[in-house]
Amino acid sequence: MVFRAVIDADVLKNSIEAISTLVDEATFKLSPGGISLKAVDPANVAMVSFELTSDAFDSYESTEGEIGLDLLKLVDVLGMADRSDNVGLELNETTHKLTITMRGLSYTLSLLDPSSIRKEPKVPSLDLPARVTLNGNELRRAVKAAEKVSDHMALGVDGDVFFMEAKGDTDQVRLELAKDELIHLEASGPARSLFSLDYLSDMSKALGKVNEITVCLGKDYPIKIDFMMADGKGKVGYLLAPRIESE
Amino acid sequence: MVFRAVIDADVLKNSIEAISTLVDEATFKLSPGGISLKAVDPANVAMVSFELTSDAFDSYESTEGEIGLDLLKLVDVLGMADRSDNVGLELNETTHKLTITMRGLSYTLSLLDPSSIRKEPKVPSLDLPARVTLNGNELRRAVKAAEKVSDHMALGVDGDVFFMEAKGDTDQVRLELAKDELIHLEASGPARSLFSLDYLSDMSKALGKVNEITVCLGKDYPIKIDFMMADGKGKVGYLLAPRIESE
Amino acid sequence: MVFRAVIDADVLKNSIEAISTLVDEATFKLSPGGISLKAVDPANVAMVSFELTSDAFDSYESTEGEIGLDLLKLVDVLGMADRSDNVGLELNETTHKLTITMRGLSYTLSLLDPSSIRKEPKVPSLDLPARVTLNGNELRRAVKAAEKVSDHMALGVDGDVFFMEAKGDTDQVRLELAKDELIHLEASGPARSLFSLDYLSDMSKALGKVNEITVCLGKDYPIKIDFMMADGKGKVGYLLAPRIESE
Repeated sequence: MVFRAVIDADVLKNSIEAISTLVDEATFKLSPGGISLKAVDPANVAMVSFELTSDAFDSYESTEGEIGLDLLKLVDVLGMADRSDNVGLELNETTHKLTITMRGLSYTLSLLDPSSIRKEPKVPSLDLPARVTLNGNELRRAVKAAEKVSDHMALGVDGDVFFMEAKGDTDQVRLELAKDELIHLEASGPARSLFSLDYLSDMSKALGKVNEITVCLGKDYPIKIDFMMADGKGKVGYLLAPRIESE
Repeated sequence: MVFRAVIDADVLKNSIEAISTLVDEATFKLSPGGISLKAVDPANVAMVSFELTSDAFDSYESTEGEIGLDLLKLVDVLGMADRSDNVGLELNETTHKLTITMRGLSYTLSLLDPSSIRKEPKVPSLDLPARVTLNGNELRRAVKAAEKVSDHMALGVDGDVFFMEAKGDTDQVRLELAKDELIHLEASGPARSLFSLDYLSDMSKALGKVNEITVCLGKDYPIKIDFMMADGKGKVGYLLAPRIESE
Repeated sequence: MVFRAVIDADVLKNSIEAISTLVDEATFKLSPGGISLKAVDPANVAMVSFELTSDAFDSYESTEGEIGLDLLKLVDVLGMADRSDNVGLELNETTHKLTITMRGLSYTLSLLDPSSIRKEPKVPSLDLPARVTLNGNELRRAVKAAEKVSDHMALGVDGDVFFMEAKGDTDQVRLELAKDELIHLEASGPARSLFSLDYLSDMSKALGKVNEITVCLGKDYPIKIDFMMADGKGKVGYLLAPRIESE
């Protein structure tokens, strides 16, 4: 098995951080066309899927295979790179190690045994009636505000308005965005589901940096949030199960 | 009772922070001419008075009345606004709530019952012999230095010199500003009083941002510190009781 | 004994921080030509030597003598100065105090009795076979990376390559710099010694800000790291004992 690649530090950091927000360890699939991953969080509430095509790399060479990585360690190591650095990645199949190179510095990271990592989930196919495209920072703002009053938040579409709201014992928060304040909105009917803020908060750290995210919603259904990265050569998708409304 | 206003986020933040440094909860008086407040800290050592006229607001509409607010929560909510944002405020008398709006996000805050809040103090009228006008940052510098050696600090006027000093077991700190280093100094005699650094430190967080503060002092008398904000449309005054010199 | 001087806040801060990284208290030698110090850390593992000539000061007047200083307190006091401030220093021999003046603020610091401070060490004269000049930030990067995997790090020269490396239980780190990536390299033979990262980490805080540091190395011998400051008017030298390789 061969894997040897060079990539912009920034692109790699953002990719790994978008995944590590939900899982600490993960198995990446390597192939000549790029790398990909599907992972589910330990509580089986959220999933992340990730793809980065080979042309997102400055150079790329890979056979088919898979490698298990400690994502928290990887984020820590990439923290040593400057945004504009190139990062070299090279697999040594014999020693089961990945060497990460940044401006003369090489860090040799032991791989994890994929059999010790939670299995790749089956991503359910969902037909969700509402689809909204907006700046990721709007979601981040709503999540941060909602955290001040509750531990869960509802997202929904009502007519031509996308709303996010949270109700606490005394206070409440609501962010409404009308169709003309959104990049896109289409809905075949009303949608509203309740989600845990723990998960939305973790996800929104990655989402807050993205100019365009697409949110798909139903009535008491999971939420799907997708965005592109690396000039469209990378794709991240989150899927989060709803909470039961207790009112 | 009606209260509906729009104001610059920065002006509102600075106002509330200047008050919340001494009290966590307070009753604001509302009137067609603006809002005001007088409050005393839980230990009865410091007082704050505050006024903001209606023309400090972008729009303002109010009848006579009063509302009780959790200032710490309000500071936290205003932390979500950018400096250049407009903040909308609207009272709902029926639900006893204040809705705070910032770029599409609305936060609905429960009011406190004014009868549960410490009563408005009587501000004593004091005839203090020395009056000094200086950059608030000078006071902040002296307070931060004094904290390194003691838990109290003396402020005074000696001839044409305004001084702030603190003595610890081994080290001491003194900041002297001569008349020509001050914006203004007038004194009908010497003044010197000792104050708790806990209070001065809290106050100096607000004072450190102000170009011009006026300090009135006597001999073992309270200190009065006043400053303008919102281009002269707002006014904050602190009054702090002296400590007994133990030397 | 007379000591009265004015100096750039930045130069004084950097000087004291370079020393305080190894020792908390130290005795400075004062003379008409400047100030100097030699000190050893409490565990007798590392030494620092320091010299600053009188022309590094804006004004300088001193007789022969010595003063004991609490360096941590001094760093804290200098933290109140802005980078561009001038700092005045004046010794009062009668009260055994040093007055530090910054923009009107004066801080009077009690001197320590030199007899209570660890004695000045004898700096051993060492003939080390390898000598490398590089940007101090490269050493800092290697130290920070090494800390992720181990508590000690080897530095050495192999042919025309200077290397720094650390091995942990699973991961390892190596930074190699070839002759053309260094400012200078000369070696009469291979060199490699192992050092405690605790000490290298402390030293590298000061070294990381310096464009040019000179590192002298042997085989299981102490390391010597020297650099200039204050436009060549100041000199700092570290000496660190090696650890025994346990492999």
